[in-house]
Amino acid sequence: MKLSKIAKILTCCFDKADREISGMNALKDATADEVSFVANAKYVKDIQDTKAAAVIVPESLVGYIPDGCVPLIVKNSYWSMAVLSKYFAPDIEDKKLPNAQIGEGSKISSKAEIANGAKIGKKCIILAHVYIGTNAVIGDNTIIYPSVTVYRDCVIGNDCIIHSNTAIGADGFGFATNSLGEHKKIYQNGNVIIEDDVEIGSNVSIDRAVFGSTLLKKGVRIDNLVQIGHNCIIGEYSVFVSQSGSAGSTKLGRNVVVGGQAAFAGHLEIASFSTFAARSGITHNIKESGKTYGGFPLLEQRQWLKLQAKIARLFKRY
Amino acid sequence: MKLSKIAKILTCCFDKADREISGMNALKDATADEVSFVANAKYVKDIQDTKAAAVIVPESLVGYIPDGCVPLIVKNSYWSMAVLSKYFAPDIEDKKLPNAQIGEGSKISSKAEIANGAKIGKKCIILAHVYIGTNAVIGDNTIIYPSVTVYRDCVIGNDCIIHSNTAIGADGFGFATNSLGEHKKIYQNGNVIIEDDVEIGSNVSIDRAVFGSTLLKKGVRIDNLVQIGHNCIIGEYSVFVSQSGSAGSTKLGRNVVVGGQAAFAGHLEIASFSTFAARSGITHNIKESGKTYGGFPLLEQRQWLKLQAKIARLFKRY
Amino acid sequence: MKLSKIAKILTCCFDKADREISGMNALKDATADEVSFVANAKYVKDIQDTKAAAVIVPESLVGYIPDGCVPLIVKNSYWSMAVLSKYFAPDIEDKKLPNAQIGEGSKISSKAEIANGAKIGKKCIILAHVYIGTNAVIGDNTIIYPSVTVYRDCVIGNDCIIHSNTAIGADGFGFATNSLGEHKKIYQNGNVIIEDDVEIGSNVSIDRAVFGSTLLKKGVRIDNLVQIGHNCIIGEYSVFVSQSGSAGSTKLGRNVVVGGQAAFAGHLEIASFSTFAARSGITHNIKESGKTYGGFPLLEQRQWLKLQAKIARLFKRY
Repeated sequence: MKLSKIAKILTCCFDKADREISGMNALKDATADEVSFVANAKYVKDIQDTKAAAVIVPESLVGYIPDGCVPLIVKNSYWSMAVLSKYFAPDIEDKKLPNAQIGEGSKISSKAEIANGAKIGKKCIILAHVYIGTNAVIGDNTIIYPSVTVYRDCVIGNDCIIHSNTAIGADGFGFATNSLGEHKKIYQNGNVIIEDDVEIGSNVSIDRAVFGSTLLKKGVRIDNLVQIGHNCIIGEYSVFVSQSGSAGSTKLGRNVVVGGQAAFAGHLEIASFSTFAARSGITHNIKESGKTYGGFPLLEQRQWLKLQAKIARLFKRY
Repeated sequence: MKLSKIAKILTCCFDKADREISGMNALKDATADEVSFVANAKYVKDIQDTKAAAVIVPESLVGYIPDGCVPLIVKNSYWSMAVLSKYFAPDIEDKKLPNAQIGEGSKISSKAEIANGAKIGKKCIILAHVYIGTNAVIGDNTIIYPSVTVYRDCVIGNDCIIHSNTAIGADGFGFATNSLGEHKKIYQNGNVIIEDDVEIGSNVSIDRAVFGSTLLKKGVRIDNLVQIGHNCIIGEYSVFVSQSGSAGSTKLGRNVVVGGQAAFAGHLEIASFSTFAARSGITHNIKESGKTYGGFPLLEQRQWLKLQAKIARLFKRY
Repeated sequence: MKLSKIAKILTCCFDKADREISGMNALKDATADEVSFVANAKYVKDIQDTKAAAVIVPESLVGYIPDGCVPLIVKNSYWSMAVLSKYFAPDIEDKKLPNAQIGEGSKISSKAEIANGAKIGKKCIILAHVYIGTNAVIGDNTIIYPSVTVYRDCVIGNDCIIHSNTAIGADGFGFATNSLGEHKKIYQNGNVIIEDDVEIGSNVSIDRAVFGSTLLKKGVRIDNLVQIGHNCIIGEYSVFVSQSGSAGSTKLGRNVVVGGQAAFAGHLEIASFSTFAARSGITHNIKESGKTYGGFPLLEQRQWLKLQAKIARLFKRY
């Protein structure tokens, strides 16, 4: 899409040299043919370093836009980003693509739907009522149980097992809200990448990224009814027990263990080999590796246990 | 069904003028051709005001039944109501109805099932393995992703998006229990109504009403793995973050924000523009609009934060 | 499989009389043609009493193996058990079995998949996009709503209702982890048994047993988005409210009531007629019948309410 057309969509001034724009991305990740946005003064540093062709920006932050980058000045930049995101959303299915490629030895139920452009590896088993979307890629020896949905463009590795009724690549929970309290959808134009040897339980939701990828690395184990928000990165061999979850953009190191019903806030970084007891509530970064936590607010697990014992004693005294 | 037949089903005396009964409803909402019930002395006022043709009632409350309303006197009125509810349950699918109507420009997967009597609007996209039940209605421009189930009689508006593996209109969790601890199903003969511009994530459960409707108003946003109990009313532009939920019959005003894993007890009224932090547990009405809450038991969020800080200090001292 | 072959798979010494082995099982439950394993000194008593043909055992515990039982000595017995479990896993579908048997009066959607070897009782209703696996058995008068998956070998009784997108019999969450932090799947070769008159909501996950059966007894009621771990036993007429769950191997008596978002740790025993308030966290056995609990850590509910009131008062004072 031409940059001039984008300016028109956003009804903002545009008098620079026109050029072709391939997509949208975060300030840090945007390439020279992408548009980005900034909604908040705390990202000032990222503005200055961005390589984006253009940035959707409120008047108040326009001074930080680097030379050569086109400012697209709007009133509510987050809302404008949401408006624009729809224009970069691909069709849900692309029927014009060639038929799916199925690797040798794979057994695909006649009641599964494999969309055009998808690629299935060798020796896979794909059972009834599975949906594999446009351009999705499934590796070798992967087993997909009934009624799993893999949305378009998602990638699943070799030797994975995905249990029934799990949704991989549904839209992340993203929208802008205006001063009237109305919401505008932010189209989630990224995908999900699942590496090799990952097992995922039933009724799990792993959301596609807004830009880029939600990533589950090699050997991850996900139990039933778990939520993985958009743009999370889950390190190798990490484990999520049932009904736990993570809000968007949180990054876990390797071998992190997340107990049942525990949950992470968004945008955190969690050190490798951290363990979280059942129902932990994690709202800050964990920098030191190898410790065990519990409670909400979060404490080291032994401290949480001590605190609970003290509270119980106090209860007897008063 | 004749009132005399209902009396026979419930094995209770009946010597009044017979009449046709069209259904069952709550005391407050019952019309002059419906049967209602009362199981608890705290609803005495509702009995006196009811317009119901007949009320299933225990001996002890029969004195409150207004003139012209027929008392159906039983031992356990809640159990009897459950028994009767089955007789008003429609068939799960009605094959005798005409084929579904599909609006112009809608794309329906050949692997979706659209039951007889359903109506799909214009320019909808309905993907594989979706089920749209008897008499369900879908508006225009609505997108329904794979393996979504919309049960019979449910209504979805225009411009909605429903993600994979979500169940709309499954039976609410209702049963009577007798003195032996056995349960009797209360058939859920209501429906779900979802207004325009609502987006619902994957693996969400929105239960149909026992009578009347569970209602999601315009612009609501529901994240993954959320529970909405029967007969809830969710106000315009309200937001439920992942793994949160509400028990039955709770009413939210507009722009209520419900954090991850937060939950409402049943039968509450929540003021508009209330915000609930992640894992809030809400067990009482919220009357004042615009405040932020957290914790379980619930406090104002800043109080909860202070309380947690004090507890942490206490822990160091003792 | 011959015992000599098992020794070869596990690369351990074997110089005893060879014999045919039919499967794997826990020490307590293993019969004379099954292999078992022990990973932990706390099971010493169970070793001495086992009837297993052979036991996978670390060097340190080999002295407890009873006469006539073959020790299979390995370095990491839990890992070796995981390795061996794959060899006893049946094919996901067995196409060579005869076509499914469908009882008189049952209505099966042409868009449902009933695998070979399955048996469906009389007067069942099985809607579109349901999957009933190899050798699964469904009783009479049972209703299964769209996109439910019943995995192979699972058994469902008479007069049951199972709502959309529920997964019955997906693999329990089991794996061994080695010193490098890598995981090895423990194949879940048991099943799920659901007795008569059980109703299960939408988006529920009930996992198959690793050995033996996960069991829901007569009259159980399960709300939406509930997790039942492998090898749980849920007593008659017990009730799980939405978003609650249990980790593996926990046994509930009859008429246990589990509030919304409450959860059990694994390997517990819970007395009949216990009630757990919403969001209870249960981590120890409950021996006395008929009490009501709440909180995490768990207290009797009235104590938890008092404690919270005291904490609130304390907050005002300090």
